[in-house]
Amino acid sequence: MNIVEEVLAGSKRALARAITAVENEYDEAAEIMKKLYPHTGNAHVIGITGPPGAGKSTLTDKLAKEYRCQGKTVGIIAVDPTSPFSGGAILGDRIRMNELTLDEGVFIRSMGTRGSLGGLSRKTAEAVKILDASGKDVIFIETVGVGQSEVDIVKAADTTMVMLVPGLGDDIQAIKAGILEIADIFTINKADRDGVDRLNTEIEMMLDLNQTMLAWRPPVKRTVASKGEGITELVATIEEHICHLKQSGQLAARRTERTKNELIALLDEQIGRYILKTVITGGTFDSLVAAIEKREQDPYTVVADLLRQVLR
Amino acid sequence: MNIVEEVLAGSKRALARAITAVENEYDEAAEIMKKLYPHTGNAHVIGITGPPGAGKSTLTDKLAKEYRCQGKTVGIIAVDPTSPFSGGAILGDRIRMNELTLDEGVFIRSMGTRGSLGGLSRKTAEAVKILDASGKDVIFIETVGVGQSEVDIVKAADTTMVMLVPGLGDDIQAIKAGILEIADIFTINKADRDGVDRLNTEIEMMLDLNQTMLAWRPPVKRTVASKGEGITELVATIEEHICHLKQSGQLAARRTERTKNELIALLDEQIGRYILKTVITGGTFDSLVAAIEKREQDPYTVVADLLRQVLR
Repeated sequence: MNIVEEVLAGSKRALARAITAVENEYDEAAEIMKKLYPHTGNAHVIGITGPPGAGKSTLTDKLAKEYRCQGKTVGIIAVDPTSPFSGGAILGDRIRMNELTLDEGVFIRSMGTRGSLGGLSRKTAEAVKILDASGKDVIFIETVGVGQSEVDIVKAADTTMVMLVPGLGDDIQAIKAGILEIADIFTINKADRDGVDRLNTEIEMMLDLNQTMLAWRPPVKRTVASKGEGITELVATIEEHICHLKQSGQLAARRTERTKNELIALLDEQIGRYILKTVITGGTFDSLVAAIEKREQDPYTVVADLLRQVLR
Repeated sequence: MNIVEEVLAGSKRALARAITAVENEYDEAAEIMKKLYPHTGNAHVIGITGPPGAGKSTLTDKLAKEYRCQGKTVGIIAVDPTSPFSGGAILGDRIRMNELTLDEGVFIRSMGTRGSLGGLSRKTAEAVKILDASGKDVIFIETVGVGQSEVDIVKAADTTMVMLVPGLGDDIQAIKAGILEIADIFTINKADRDGVDRLNTEIEMMLDLNQTMLAWRPPVKRTVASKGEGITELVATIEEHICHLKQSGQLAARRTERTKNELIALLDEQIGRYILKTVITGGTFDSLVAAIEKREQDPYTVVADLLRQVLR
């Protein structure tokens, strides 16, 4: 049995190998993805993001257990984009040494950037597709922090959940401004802490100000993930959101948008690779850089010249 | 006098207009950048990053004042990548309504993503070049949070300062792992808080573990920016770092690396634009997306086909 067949059969070993192939850009990756692609599109993908310390992995684990109780299979991709140099994703693995890893119906994988020039959001999306093809019913993408790269990562999700915790201090406004537009559900975790009502009110006020949200107003839920409180209700809310997406036609619209974006990203990346190969390893690149540094040339003219050489 | 001459003469109005042109991708932007480019390369660029709530803008303002005391002119680019939808950078402007804005030798600008498909790090780098060409001696790039996009943004800096504060909680390890490699200087701000010694020890321990840093071990400084404490010493440390960069040849090496990366990024972006124009508005794009969604095609084969059409 080859790796594609094994993935389709749900083998954990094959899943791990396929994701590693995508992550490290092995030659076989494209071939694997091509063959798995027809089997994708069935999973419900849930993005979970929020500031450091929000308790994302604890909550994801609890949600995963709840879904397992309901008889669904679960995939978890924990993405750590904060460490582009050291490879990241070490913490995630360490935390997850719990009973979930022994469950045959759960597959957990951490992903970091491994020093590559970006591409993490594309690789995350492909890991999701691999899990999707393998038959996982629910796939979580969990990512640390809320910045541009995190936003790109959660774009692979059908439902995006933004986690907040009471008492994170001054710049919370700055964070919230950025996530308001991507949140389908807000979860205030560690809701047994002081300040939970204030935070809840702040979120609701921001939602009031946002005129564009009409069909679905993101509900604000409360959890204490470490104690398992609010988990069942949260799963119900997630399910409600996916129902809304399906009934309103939003699910199809979002997925079309995603397909477009992924296609553009892939095209972009392939062309980047072509340039790297022809222009940069072609020999003239270093002399162009030197000329730019001496201010004999400017980057804008150089790029225009290079483009004429590369593009039709 | 045209805008390029006015920028070179240091006009605040012209600086604002030029940066706006770059930010909004006006047609004149490329022409402005081409003409300003020969006048760049003189400023010392300092990147300041750290988690939300670290007090970045307060510290940057204090550092700016110290440099003004020393007779140097200062530019500040405050980047807020957290809000790709709402445009971001609102907060930064509000905070900065202070005496610095009245100083002719200081130029402050906030930048957000304004809904564009990335490109923020390139735009930040170009804003830095505009300020550089205008004769600013010191330019600060200040950015909220520490994620992949923030790392990309501070890549335009000669000296990167990472700010931390005591008592930020659990996931601080995750943040620190990612910034260790980009930090030239660590600053513990709000150093009058509990936990400052512990945080200091933690950073030093991480530095001990990092074998690759030999020529320059990032010093760990302490400040209470709101009270102006530790600012003079911090400026001395920044100056020490730039001296080290110059004497060791690292400055030239870093700038060459930066020129290369910027060239590749620019090339990448121009190609992206070309794709948008030819492939996507070409008409076949939507039908390809539809075929992929129906699983009649896979994205990998489609991209390979498109590449053959676009590339020489």
